[in-house]
Amino acid sequence: MTESRQTMSPDRYYEDYAIGDTRKTTGRTITETDFVVHAGHTGDFFPHHMDAEFAKSTPFGQRIAHGTMTFAIGIGLTASEINPKAFTYGYDRLRFPKPVFIGDTLHTQLTISAKEPDPKRDGFGRVVESCRVINQRGETVLACDHILLVERKPAD
Amino acid sequence: MTESRQTMSPDRYYEDYAIGDTRKTTGRTITETDFVVHAGHTGDFFPHHMDAEFAKSTPFGQRIAHGTMTFAIGIGLTASEINPKAFTYGYDRLRFPKPVFIGDTLHTQLTISAKEPDPKRDGFGRVVESCRVINQRGETVLACDHILLVERKPAD
Amino acid sequence: MTESRQTMSPDRYYEDYAIGDTRKTTGRTITETDFVVHAGHTGDFFPHHMDAEFAKSTPFGQRIAHGTMTFAIGIGLTASEINPKAFTYGYDRLRFPKPVFIGDTLHTQLTISAKEPDPKRDGFGRVVESCRVINQRGETVLACDHILLVERKPAD
Amino acid sequence: MTESRQTMSPDRYYEDYAIGDTRKTTGRTITETDFVVHAGHTGDFFPHHMDAEFAKSTPFGQRIAHGTMTFAIGIGLTASEINPKAFTYGYDRLRFPKPVFIGDTLHTQLTISAKEPDPKRDGFGRVVESCRVINQRGETVLACDHILLVERKPAD
Amino acid sequence: MTESRQTMSPDRYYEDYAIGDTRKTTGRTITETDFVVHAGHTGDFFPHHMDAEFAKSTPFGQRIAHGTMTFAIGIGLTASEINPKAFTYGYDRLRFPKPVFIGDTLHTQLTISAKEPDPKRDGFGRVVESCRVINQRGETVLACDHILLVERKPAD
Amino acid sequence: MTESRQTMSPDRYYEDYAIGDTRKTTGRTITETDFVVHAGHTGDFFPHHMDAEFAKSTPFGQRIAHGTMTFAIGIGLTASEINPKAFTYGYDRLRFPKPVFIGDTLHTQLTISAKEPDPKRDGFGRVVESCRVINQRGETVLACDHILLVERKPAD
Repeated sequence: MTESRQTMSPDRYYEDYAIGDTRKTTGRTITETDFVVHAGHTGDFFPHHMDAEFAKSTPFGQRIAHGTMTFAIGIGLTASEINPKAFTYGYDRLRFPKPVFIGDTLHTQLTISAKEPDPKRDGFGRVVESCRVINQRGETVLACDHILLVERKPAD
Repeated sequence: MTESRQTMSPDRYYEDYAIGDTRKTTGRTITETDFVVHAGHTGDFFPHHMDAEFAKSTPFGQRIAHGTMTFAIGIGLTASEINPKAFTYGYDRLRFPKPVFIGDTLHTQLTISAKEPDPKRDGFGRVVESCRVINQRGETVLACDHILLVERKPAD
Repeated sequence: MTESRQTMSPDRYYEDYAIGDTRKTTGRTITETDFVVHAGHTGDFFPHHMDAEFAKSTPFGQRIAHGTMTFAIGIGLTASEINPKAFTYGYDRLRFPKPVFIGDTLHTQLTISAKEPDPKRDGFGRVVESCRVINQRGETVLACDHILLVERKPAD
Repeated sequence: MTESRQTMSPDRYYEDYAIGDTRKTTGRTITETDFVVHAGHTGDFFPHHMDAEFAKSTPFGQRIAHGTMTFAIGIGLTASEINPKAFTYGYDRLRFPKPVFIGDTLHTQLTISAKEPDPKRDGFGRVVESCRVINQRGETVLACDHILLVERKPAD
Repeated sequence: MTESRQTMSPDRYYEDYAIGDTRKTTGRTITETDFVVHAGHTGDFFPHHMDAEFAKSTPFGQRIAHGTMTFAIGIGLTASEINPKAFTYGYDRLRFPKPVFIGDTLHTQLTISAKEPDPKRDGFGRVVESCRVINQRGETVLACDHILLVERKPAD
Repeated sequence: MTESRQTMSPDRYYEDYAIGDTRKTTGRTITETDFVVHAGHTGDFFPHHMDAEFAKSTPFGQRIAHGTMTFAIGIGLTASEINPKAFTYGYDRLRFPKPVFIGDTLHTQLTISAKEPDPKRDGFGRVVESCRVINQRGETVLACDHILLVERKPAD
């Protein structure tokens, strides 16, 4: 018997999202390399991220990750599934409750927290995916609401 | 006569921010390299960003930038000033009105759009910095509100 | 109703692999950036990969990818599934029938071509996954046999 | 007196390879950076390579290198010599007898183990270069046979 | 009241440079990542920089930074100011009095040490900016003279 | 017959350098990737290097390479030989006669231009290696004098 699986995930329509659905990604350790790559990628070489001597004098006592990196990697961890029927509309209430240090291991938890027909776009709904990036101590280091535009299931 | 300037910018307190203040960064061309670096940095290799053949079949006809990259680089462009008295509280209403293509040149415009004493933290105020990342055609490709916690000026 | 999906793929035992099973990955365009990154990652700056002027004088007329890069990226494309019950034993008959040029778009096709109980390890079987990395013209640019050690299904 | 040396190595023909010839490369320490770069280069972010917390629960107790990286860097170490008369035909029996950990220092040992006139290509011979990538404890972490197509010396 | 600041620094003419002017940059910790990135960027994988085992046998007992990296990063640290009226003419007496190790934190001190009208270019002067890259122990690890060509102030 | 070659080059003593000796490296094409990597490595995102729109308004009409990159890559090209008896003392008269553009192909020419016993170090001599980095049009884009400290041959 032959089985064929595609990496491109199957279509998920607006109707296929249920409030309370959850997904948890694999983990990833944030390394000093990630700090250096992110500074070089964005041009942000603030001493809080890049100067270990300066960082000793801050309340954290060590370098802390760029917020933009925690966001980019935290969201990147969710990229194992590709739903061709969903598009990013935006992000709301992006917060950084705790700092990320070199050596922390992060994963992302996604929960469908709201959905409604799109007020402006026929054939689309809005789905709110609540994202939490969580470290190895169980602390939330980033929280945000990812707003998706998702196609509605075509009528037969 | 001797002049001494420090790269670390001078302290700016809550009282020093005025609604309507604007700042415009230098520009940066987004290259195919940035696409590849961002995919590698985040692990997001979605074909919309990485597969030129697939991208021909999409409405845009070409690869489009990761939203997380437009955010990270757009905010990174503002990092030429370091105010030791201000901290990022979060970002609100992050939207991507237009796609970013390989070869687009972006700069960021910042406008102080609101300020208020922090309801929970004595000695701090909240300052809202409206960010717009703009391409060489004058189109806004990213908009968001950057919420800063800023120390209040100490009473003498 | 609540649905929970894990990115870590479900266990697949030796018995779950069927000869003829196929899987096809998403595509990825090989960029000049990938050439430069691979040279820097491996230290191989041979002019065939890095010197556009020299490359004009070769039969291909342009820079060609490192074989080790085609292998690393071609195998990397298959990494969207993690089977905790399978381990890489090795690769056989790795060949490069056609060169890879800057701008080529590659995907990988996997076919289970053989399986047998492991002669030396009780509780394991060997599964041969035939890998073909294929460009946008349908040409095979890399072929190899990936030999997996896979746990046998525990008896109940 | 003037001496002129070229970095491009002198021509070596099929006849110039002798069974038993050996060459040993310089060494290179595999860093956490290499792990991160390789994941980003290939898109393979498996937790065995990237998640230090997960790795503690595996038999190795720590992150292990991608096999494709050990191969790419191990072969890259041999790239200090360019023989314009030799081409890679492929690799056989690629095996990974031991894992590579962050901080291991690798070098590659090459031995000419076989040669024969090419059965299909007049004017070429096949040379088998046995490759062993060896760590600082003297353990072989990768073994393979590199098959070269080498031009035969032109008759005068 | 509205304030508008540009990241592009204000024009500084030849007449605006005074001998003895000093500027000190923010600091940056040199990481193992920087070593690996620099080797990959330049192709220089000498064991003094890349082989931790070999480095144990040298007088320094550990890997030392590429001189070209100390120069590139040390000068890069000064790039927070852009004077549109000044151009690099060259560098003189580039010396490396002390090695740079992984984990050292560097900043750069600039002092205007000489100026004279350009002998060959009407309307330009030469300004010598003495650069010292200094580590967290106060040791100078790089010294050089940066020679700038600077426009003279236009007569009114 | 067995031949053993080491990548580490043979010892060359002060006495082994002859004025007029020349060496020419392989070539390397400078890519847009190199521009982006160098900016990220050094933190220098000046618009002359990174903003294609701005660069159109400059006399060169396009982005130009960082001088520090031309130096780092130009010297890196010479790293194919490792002489364990020679150490870098410094560089003199580093000049950039012509700009480097994306797509230029560079190689480096080295000529021994002077030598003298070291005035301060018994057992060492100073050797001046004149370096010229040359593009595909034969133009010198960088010139400098590399000053080497080289051990003198031990008396028998």
